[in-house]
Amino acid sequence: MASAVADRGIALRPHTKTHKSVSLARIQLDAGARGVTVGTLGEAEVMAGGGIDDIFIAYPLWVDEGKAGRLRALLERDGLELAIGVDSTAGAERLARATGGLRRRPCVLIEADPGNRRTGVAAEEAAAVARAATNAGLEVRGVFVHGGHAYGGADAIAGAARDEVETLAAAVDALFAAGLPARVVSAGSSPTALGAAREPVNEVRPGTYLLGDRQQVALGASPPNGVAICVAATVVSTTVAGQIVIDAGAKALTKDLPPYLAGYGTMPAYPAGIIERVSDYHGVVTFPDGAARPSLGDIVAVVPNHACPVVDLYDSFIATRSGSTTGRWPVDARGRSG
Amino acid sequence: MASAVADRGIALRPHTKTHKSVSLARIQLDAGARGVTVGTLGEAEVMAGGGIDDIFIAYPLWVDEGKAGRLRALLERDGLELAIGVDSTAGAERLARATGGLRRRPCVLIEADPGNRRTGVAAEEAAAVARAATNAGLEVRGVFVHGGHAYGGADAIAGAARDEVETLAAAVDALFAAGLPARVVSAGSSPTALGAAREPVNEVRPGTYLLGDRQQVALGASPPNGVAICVAATVVSTTVAGQIVIDAGAKALTKDLPPYLAGYGTMPAYPAGIIERVSDYHGVVTFPDGAARPSLGDIVAVVPNHACPVVDLYDSFIATRSGSTTGRWPVDARGRSG
Repeated sequence: MASAVADRGIALRPHTKTHKSVSLARIQLDAGARGVTVGTLGEAEVMAGGGIDDIFIAYPLWVDEGKAGRLRALLERDGLELAIGVDSTAGAERLARATGGLRRRPCVLIEADPGNRRTGVAAEEAAAVARAATNAGLEVRGVFVHGGHAYGGADAIAGAARDEVETLAAAVDALFAAGLPARVVSAGSSPTALGAAREPVNEVRPGTYLLGDRQQVALGASPPNGVAICVAATVVSTTVAGQIVIDAGAKALTKDLPPYLAGYGTMPAYPAGIIERVSDYHGVVTFPDGAARPSLGDIVAVVPNHACPVVDLYDSFIATRSGSTTGRWPVDARGRSG
Repeated sequence: MASAVADRGIALRPHTKTHKSVSLARIQLDAGARGVTVGTLGEAEVMAGGGIDDIFIAYPLWVDEGKAGRLRALLERDGLELAIGVDSTAGAERLARATGGLRRRPCVLIEADPGNRRTGVAAEEAAAVARAATNAGLEVRGVFVHGGHAYGGADAIAGAARDEVETLAAAVDALFAAGLPARVVSAGSSPTALGAAREPVNEVRPGTYLLGDRQQVALGASPPNGVAICVAATVVSTTVAGQIVIDAGAKALTKDLPPYLAGYGTMPAYPAGIIERVSDYHGVVTFPDGAARPSLGDIVAVVPNHACPVVDLYDSFIATRSGSTTGRWPVDARGRSG
């Protein structure tokens, strides 16, 4: 990812909500990332605490009293470049009030909606929010989108990437017409990152690409050998015919189940097994007659459907290479969902 | 729950995987619970560390090398009564080997399957596993079942409770015929706890009843005013027509979605809102035309579909009474899923 976007002359600002790890963010920065993206104030605090000095909170934070104190403390760190997403005039004005009087204030990026229908204004309304932010005393650094509708399936990705580019182009034009140049034009999700890496986009924010997961492979966004994450599970019961039970359930794999996948994860060594049911600590895996299956007590690798919420269930990664353990990386921002 | 089962002369051993909190377990013990149930060795370690001295791991642990060391350390605690579930001869023998030579060894309960089709042997096979455990040097304390098929819907509960009682009766008979009396006969889930609280059952293990959740209400297992848990969320975006976005997504509410519920949780103050989509940090809530909805910046209470995996996402409970904060209880066993 780093070299592919560098070849296009585009900046990489990976979303660290996937791994929540300062160690992994450092690997990404060492490979050329310009800074990091986070989804919450808590993640920003953790990354800044780990010495990372260029952070974009790609989220329309609503800065209530508790968050205002935390945000002000964060902005008082020396040398930290902090940008925050806004998608409303009220949100921009509140952010400005919460950070009034500080030596350094956050820049903002205006969020536009490329058709994902989650957050973000229509492109032509980006100028009004940008104007409000400027009037409130904030520096508008640019515009951003998230093409989450790429997750509709493999055939949705190209369209979502195109939507991102077109929405950003229209938002840039709207800001320009209002006398507000957009210095940063930021697109991104893992599936759309490369498709959206073209004019006027100058930054992409993929997250899951680093670890990969079953969903990314199904979408064609990761090669099958591009998945770096698995959950180690043990077969704990084989008493009910036609199935085995592993000790990875909803608190290990989550219940994330995209409509185009069967089961709550997959075991690469036993591809015929379907993790049909998960309860808190049990995963029930069914097999067609005659298919290879692990035995009681075996340890199996399970590739989760969606890496991001799974990582948030663990305190650390165990890093391995060629079957040997090479490190243990804390999930520093585990649980920092606010 | 405590008084209802006490009235029937039956012991309560609540499952603490729901709250993972020593403080809440103490409240349950003070209300008359005989001991606690846990689902993992990690939860047992946390509860024992909190001074709780009667613990049942209702799970067919596979005691590998790492777990053997942890289990031995746990068994060396003075005054701890520890019982562990088994559902296979191999599992019982492994448990016996792992705890060989200790002054105190765990008792075991044989798990039978009441039709949940997850773990547990057929009732008539319980005697063979019990015999193997006895021959391996373990004390068989009794039999247990989990009627998880009660979660099929409100009309499944009575049948699942009956299945639990009948399966336990058959397992008790099988053990008796083999010369192995079952001292503890343990049933349970929150929906079935009261229905199964009758001969020969002498212990029940509900968990979710303490906090309640949207699923328990839908099943008729909690009254609507019996839900003690909510997630506090803030409205962060209202830019897309027909919906609002809250800052509670999959890392706050999980993607647990029973087929008989619409949306990933419910807002009691805005019952027409449906939390249709969750991504990591966003919950997209749609409303029918004209329905009351919260405004940008409002804080809303969200009752989750399923309390257990949601609690595992947080470091503490904030306890309130009549709108005032009365305590902060750590989720001590958060993430202790193994």
